[in-house]
Amino acid sequence: MFETAELGRTLDKAAYDKREPELRTELLALQERAREARLPVYVLINGVDGAGKGETVNLLHEWMDPRFLNTCAFGPRTDEERARPDWWRYWRALALKGRIGIYFGNWYTDPIVLRALKKLDKDRFETSLTRIKMVERALVDDGALIIKLWFHLSKPAQKRVYRQLLSSKRTRWRVTKQDLQNQDRYDRFRELSERALRETSTGFAPWTIIEAEDARYRDVAVGETLVAALRDRLERKPAPRPSAEQRPPPNHGRTILDTVDNTQKVSDKKYEHRLDELQARLHGAFEELKKQGRSAIAVFEGWDAAGKGGAIRRITAALDARDYQIIPIAAPTDEERAQHYLWRFWRHLPGSGKVTVYDRSWYGRVLVERVEGFATEAEWQRAYNEINEFEEQLVEHGTVIAKLWLHIDPAEQLKRFKERERISFKKFKITQEDYRNRDKAAHYVHAVHDMVERTSTDVAPCHLVAANDKRFARLDVLEHLCQRIEAAR
Amino acid sequence: MFETAELGRTLDKAAYDKREPELRTELLALQERAREARLPVYVLINGVDGAGKGETVNLLHEWMDPRFLNTCAFGPRTDEERARPDWWRYWRALALKGRIGIYFGNWYTDPIVLRALKKLDKDRFETSLTRIKMVERALVDDGALIIKLWFHLSKPAQKRVYRQLLSSKRTRWRVTKQDLQNQDRYDRFRELSERALRETSTGFAPWTIIEAEDARYRDVAVGETLVAALRDRLERKPAPRPSAEQRPPPNHGRTILDTVDNTQKVSDKKYEHRLDELQARLHGAFEELKKQGRSAIAVFEGWDAAGKGGAIRRITAALDARDYQIIPIAAPTDEERAQHYLWRFWRHLPGSGKVTVYDRSWYGRVLVERVEGFATEAEWQRAYNEINEFEEQLVEHGTVIAKLWLHIDPAEQLKRFKERERISFKKFKITQEDYRNRDKAAHYVHAVHDMVERTSTDVAPCHLVAANDKRFARLDVLEHLCQRIEAAR
Repeated sequence: MFETAELGRTLDKAAYDKREPELRTELLALQERAREARLPVYVLINGVDGAGKGETVNLLHEWMDPRFLNTCAFGPRTDEERARPDWWRYWRALALKGRIGIYFGNWYTDPIVLRALKKLDKDRFETSLTRIKMVERALVDDGALIIKLWFHLSKPAQKRVYRQLLSSKRTRWRVTKQDLQNQDRYDRFRELSERALRETSTGFAPWTIIEAEDARYRDVAVGETLVAALRDRLERKPAPRPSAEQRPPPNHGRTILDTVDNTQKVSDKKYEHRLDELQARLHGAFEELKKQGRSAIAVFEGWDAAGKGGAIRRITAALDARDYQIIPIAAPTDEERAQHYLWRFWRHLPGSGKVTVYDRSWYGRVLVERVEGFATEAEWQRAYNEINEFEEQLVEHGTVIAKLWLHIDPAEQLKRFKERERISFKKFKITQEDYRNRDKAAHYVHAVHDMVERTSTDVAPCHLVAANDKRFARLDVLEHLCQRIEAAR
Repeated sequence: MFETAELGRTLDKAAYDKREPELRTELLALQERAREARLPVYVLINGVDGAGKGETVNLLHEWMDPRFLNTCAFGPRTDEERARPDWWRYWRALALKGRIGIYFGNWYTDPIVLRALKKLDKDRFETSLTRIKMVERALVDDGALIIKLWFHLSKPAQKRVYRQLLSSKRTRWRVTKQDLQNQDRYDRFRELSERALRETSTGFAPWTIIEAEDARYRDVAVGETLVAALRDRLERKPAPRPSAEQRPPPNHGRTILDTVDNTQKVSDKKYEHRLDELQARLHGAFEELKKQGRSAIAVFEGWDAAGKGGAIRRITAALDARDYQIIPIAAPTDEERAQHYLWRFWRHLPGSGKVTVYDRSWYGRVLVERVEGFATEAEWQRAYNEINEFEEQLVEHGTVIAKLWLHIDPAEQLKRFKERERISFKKFKITQEDYRNRDKAAHYVHAVHDMVERTSTDVAPCHLVAANDKRFARLDVLEHLCQRIEAAR
């Protein structure tokens, strides 16, 4: 694979001086067009030590408009990063749509380096590569352009580069001890890199290998690659956005919601007693989890007026206020809108010993966005996998996740709507929108059915809560959360 | 001071049941108005252990629209937080304008607790209080409403509360070992709290002390306080925004810029040699700083076309790409616009062993925003202090800060403009705006003069760079940065 980048290609000064201004002009124009198109562009810079990756980043800052470039490099993980799934640090660094993000020391670095040092076994190395493909797929599906550049030097070429740098007192510092030590592992790195590139050079996000010994040749090759990728992407006609029109829901007949026994009730007296008991139990269970440095997530979904807020407050009452945050999903901010839809949820993942309660969540994609046609069928269909993949990462990291759907029947819902309208301080909770949603109930039922079918997994089951009786629901929610935390120990 | 909150005030159930729905209705309406007015509201929850602070936060989530509440609690610092000035964690948690942020375990907690434990001496305790006042002043000046609630229990009342909670197996967990230990320090905490409250109960951000033994009385008192503060703030006619109209610059005669000797030059040959030398020196100096876990900031300001980008690249070329980030100050994002103007700079402060290069900076407030009238005179006038205060925090934390103004004279600037227009890949750098700015040169000169006069301090001096000769300027910038880092050791 790398032989094609060991051809000794060079570029003389005259040819470089001719090509450079053209390239810069083209790059600037394409950057501007990408900005107008709000195209998210991620440029990955990887490759062999000594191949000039840092110099290239400097060069890109010179060649393009630096106001719309974001460069990120990742070093050792901070404790906030270690407290969350591996990918958190990359998600939080993603550039806004319309900007160009340049990443080095990125998501390819750890798997290759850790595998080379035998800190990662073969299976986990392969799993990392699969995960990378899935995340890149999700970003590309969302409209991103990912340009992956691999800077290559043959073993003798790397030696020559180092020798040259070391020959002067003033450039010697550019070669670190680590660089010299890594030379011994050149073959091992090469083999693993080849495996990683082969596995992750996909149609939607291919690698380009850059022969890097001759700086002029390298720089122009980088420029040409960016120009070609940007032009190709910008000139490709976007597939006509498939109509997100409402189709009648498939007639499943009986759905999963029909299995919920909504006649269940609890008496006043028993409620108070059980509530105290469960809150104490939750507190204890969570303290244990905290000792392990782990975290928990509770996801609340359900019909309008199903009692999410009340159930959430019964949970938080059992926790130290320093340990939880509630993330109500309202309209996204502009920064959130300028990212993949999962970004705003990644953003709030709990750290060690913390709980995040999502009041509505990423399931919006396959519920309201599906039913209202805010997402195309392709978008919500692929969301099931994206969500499973996301939750799998949480669970792998050791985060406990409880997913709750609060179910009330239509008559109960109408009763609560009317009640809310009567009470001045509850009026704000009820709008015409809520009534309109009732007309779409059949669609929602099927969306919920499909959601459970596609995303209720062993590692992150979806728990349906009979919520016609508010108190019964609150106890059930508390008990489920206790069980999830206890089971995770 | 606290005697006024030891009167044994209670509220019976009937009175509570009557007042509660009214309060909720008022609060919701005011929350909505605050949102429409994009008013930033910060509610601080502090006070004695056992006084029901957590319960109150739960209650506020029930009483108000939780979609627009952000609750933050601060525990032990993470390493990302420890790597930056103390206030970084609070700045990054500030709620967007129009939302209500609720903070407990906030900026008052550490000074009081650390002082009580004798981990903070008297002077540093007083300094912390002064700093708090200055930050709160800056936030209020920017339009924020800060509501500070102190929950008080007398020593016997606290004992009664604990005894009651401990009497049942199911509520026992609410009292922690720490709570019981802290009882011995009640008097010490009381004395320090009184000192803190007296010192920080300012006209622009006063404290309200809430008598907290009776839960119903406490809840209603909190509600009433919020209603009164929100109503007062929303009904106060905003002072008519003073015209930001351009006044002729004062005739300083000779300004600080006249002291720059712009005839200084460096030859090609000497440049290459010195560049290598200085880059190696910078690399070494920074490695030393890194070993100490410290960080550095370089702030670039200067005339259009003064060569900021080129100078920045000569710095970054000497650093490991994983160690620096360049923050180009373009138009703020929506989230940035919904915060105090310093927020977007706090956001990017470097962690341990890192460098942030700001390509334009917070000085925009007293330069372009002043000259263009984007900021009122009151706004840019107070910015000098806000900036000094900000930089002082950086320096205290151990961050090295280098501030550079790149100076070219008008003839050289015109020459560079013309040159940029000739070169296709440099055209993007030059717009009609740049020519218009030239007409305002006299205003800018005086703004720069005032900036140096007001913000060039011993701890963070402003360095004026003779930049007519690009190469001379680059060397000078590198040398200044080296000196700043070396002097900080």
